[in-house]
Amino acid sequence: MLLDNSLLAPRLKLFPLLGSAAIRPQLIKGEMNVMPAINPQRLMNDLKHLRTIGKYDTGVVRPAFSTKDMEARQWLLDRMGEAGLEASMDGVGNVFGRSPNPGRGVLIGSHTDTQPQGGWLDGSLGVIYGLEIARSWAEDRRTAHFTVDVASWSDEEGTYMSMLGCRSFCDMLSRDDMERAQNHQTAQPLPAALTQAGLAGIPADRLEPDRYSAYLEAHVEQGPHLDAQGKLLGVVTAIVGIRTFRITFKGQQNHAGTTPMAYRRDAGVALMELAHVINREFPTLVSPRTVWTVGYVRLEPGSPSVVPGRAEMFLQFRDTDEKILDALESKTARIVKEAHEQGPVEVNLEAEFPQCEATALDGTVQECLAAAAENHAPGKWIRMPSGAGHDAQILAHHLPSGMLFIPSIGGISHDIAEDTAAEDIVRGCRALATATEALLRQANPV
Amino acid sequence: MLLDNSLLAPRLKLFPLLGSAAIRPQLIKGEMNVMPAINPQRLMNDLKHLRTIGKYDTGVVRPAFSTKDMEARQWLLDRMGEAGLEASMDGVGNVFGRSPNPGRGVLIGSHTDTQPQGGWLDGSLGVIYGLEIARSWAEDRRTAHFTVDVASWSDEEGTYMSMLGCRSFCDMLSRDDMERAQNHQTAQPLPAALTQAGLAGIPADRLEPDRYSAYLEAHVEQGPHLDAQGKLLGVVTAIVGIRTFRITFKGQQNHAGTTPMAYRRDAGVALMELAHVINREFPTLVSPRTVWTVGYVRLEPGSPSVVPGRAEMFLQFRDTDEKILDALESKTARIVKEAHEQGPVEVNLEAEFPQCEATALDGTVQECLAAAAENHAPGKWIRMPSGAGHDAQILAHHLPSGMLFIPSIGGISHDIAEDTAAEDIVRGCRALATATEALLRQANPV
Repeated sequence: MLLDNSLLAPRLKLFPLLGSAAIRPQLIKGEMNVMPAINPQRLMNDLKHLRTIGKYDTGVVRPAFSTKDMEARQWLLDRMGEAGLEASMDGVGNVFGRSPNPGRGVLIGSHTDTQPQGGWLDGSLGVIYGLEIARSWAEDRRTAHFTVDVASWSDEEGTYMSMLGCRSFCDMLSRDDMERAQNHQTAQPLPAALTQAGLAGIPADRLEPDRYSAYLEAHVEQGPHLDAQGKLLGVVTAIVGIRTFRITFKGQQNHAGTTPMAYRRDAGVALMELAHVINREFPTLVSPRTVWTVGYVRLEPGSPSVVPGRAEMFLQFRDTDEKILDALESKTARIVKEAHEQGPVEVNLEAEFPQCEATALDGTVQECLAAAAENHAPGKWIRMPSGAGHDAQILAHHLPSGMLFIPSIGGISHDIAEDTAAEDIVRGCRALATATEALLRQANPV
Repeated sequence: MLLDNSLLAPRLKLFPLLGSAAIRPQLIKGEMNVMPAINPQRLMNDLKHLRTIGKYDTGVVRPAFSTKDMEARQWLLDRMGEAGLEASMDGVGNVFGRSPNPGRGVLIGSHTDTQPQGGWLDGSLGVIYGLEIARSWAEDRRTAHFTVDVASWSDEEGTYMSMLGCRSFCDMLSRDDMERAQNHQTAQPLPAALTQAGLAGIPADRLEPDRYSAYLEAHVEQGPHLDAQGKLLGVVTAIVGIRTFRITFKGQQNHAGTTPMAYRRDAGVALMELAHVINREFPTLVSPRTVWTVGYVRLEPGSPSVVPGRAEMFLQFRDTDEKILDALESKTARIVKEAHEQGPVEVNLEAEFPQCEATALDGTVQECLAAAAENHAPGKWIRMPSGAGHDAQILAHHLPSGMLFIPSIGGISHDIAEDTAAEDIVRGCRALATATEALLRQANPV
């Protein structure tokens, strides 16, 4: 659908950088004769196949530990094995493909789980990029000795806990944290979900920091900036901090016909008025980059003829500036306190665990990505912060980490309409491959 | 729990009106030697047993056509059979207990289905009152020749369609209406629910108007008026009109981190701002009796990290004055139109089918109920409109109909905390029995 044969056929025209050295003038010095070519058709075929697992209209439904999520993980294990990687899944569902080579390598990863109704690329893109780069490297005798490992982290989307897999990999979770986590829609506890997924009793893998010189993650931008500015690649400078709060409202459930307005303690009205105050107050405290969202609301019991006795909402806000996040958090606490004191409904604010700190990405890795971006999209790339949270945000505290973005058509993401042009997908993989090579050569000087 | 033996034992003290003629001075003339005594212990036992079917904490979960709803109907059929009534269930789940006697009778009914989390009395009270009155009559040789029929109407609470059973009984529904109805939470179509409940192929019963001189329905008030004023009985003058609207919002689902506020078309924000405008504007148009409620809200896809692309809410308002309902409907239409035109989210207003007209109850039946109320609660009863919809609202267009209310503790209803003191429950049954007798004697003069 996205990549027809007519696009792939005139290969030198569409992909001039992979032709002879003569037509790759912008390649990073010293690398032009070595970097193996990725296989664009194989890359696209794998992305398209992965899209069929949990396919929903033009999108994908593969929430963490669902049947389809586990099916996708099994499929990925098979692909990794075919690529000559040592493939395994750990006790929290992380899928690893490890190079049999020794030496300091690069870890490339992202996630294959999705939002309740997710786009087909999202995290899958970065995982298949890693797979394609690792297998191109392994196939080429000039690079077969390098160590490129691939990871698909579990539950990045936070069905149970955002970035669960890489938090576990970086040994950041206690047994308590694991037992407390639960599906926010079904209330299924995480341990039960892991058991149901067949993962009970399997140990969790931990990071061996000496094995890697860097962690790389590619992703669709999920926002409008690249697309709107006609840019082809984005080198990520920092990842936003994310704070999520559950606000609960306790009133008195009652009959919607017989309870006079003056007697009511309507939890739904309290919720909607509080949301209104947030939307009125927040704009005075933010930068143009700040975002806030109420993505989930529930009224109980949820009948048109019953005054809601309980209600809850999730409020989330994001910025790369922790000071702005602090200001929004204080404001939220004040709004909640005032609503609670004013009554007649009890209002309670609770921070979700875990929160995500605003995280700057490694300068050296950024420079390698910037050089690769200039190489593959001269003048058509930008440096930018990430408004989305990513696994790199966790890894960055343990390994030099970097991220590369490719455009999202119309900026649409976390929606089945999410899409990216095939040539942009292929270009992104080539740029990530170039950066991977630079990092491998830096870490393994001849 | 509510009626201990010490309350029942000193019968003449607690229930003096059922003793000798000498201590029943306020009984309606000519009836004091005839009316059979209802059995308070049997009445309470049946109410308590019915409460165990679908018990949830102190309340009951028995939505229409659920397993527990059908179990309760089967239990009721058995009780009716034991009482000497001809017991049957029709094709929409209405349960009837018909007297084998000829002659113009009285139909007593209400409903045994509940809200998603309902109170234990609600409609069950009126059904068991009917059962207790019919069997007391049948047991007493002085009254065994009278015709008292009992009905438990299906789906009064509108899980699929409010007052489905009595609308069907009064032949007000087309095949189309039946096929269009669906569970507003699960979207299961009504015909599928009927099939699942084992009702496929069973004909629906219709009203034979000549069989009855009146329809009577008793109910807990479900509001605070009786309780707050220290009154024991309420004679209903009219039942509110109910208009329910589904308001839908169509924006663009997107990533909650990467989509700048200015680019968003957030269906959830549009919904909450519209709810705020309604709460601001409605108070200028209403009477102290008017009520309006947003009892159900849904954001799609319902993830804290996704900008909602679609949202819907139900708005319902009620009044006995159709002019006020018209004004609120016009205002709602204008608010929706303005929100839609202002953008960036499409907003659509749709009236739910069927709406309930404001309905005055029959004057003669009211007088019989008023006399009975004065008899059993001298000076401690009031005339009042009903803020809740009831099956009587439908029947009233086809038969002279009346309603009697007993107090709800704290005015709480449509909640598991709903409750009424046992002596108030027993008093209500006696008052309804007295009114029943008066109506039967009027219709069957010696």
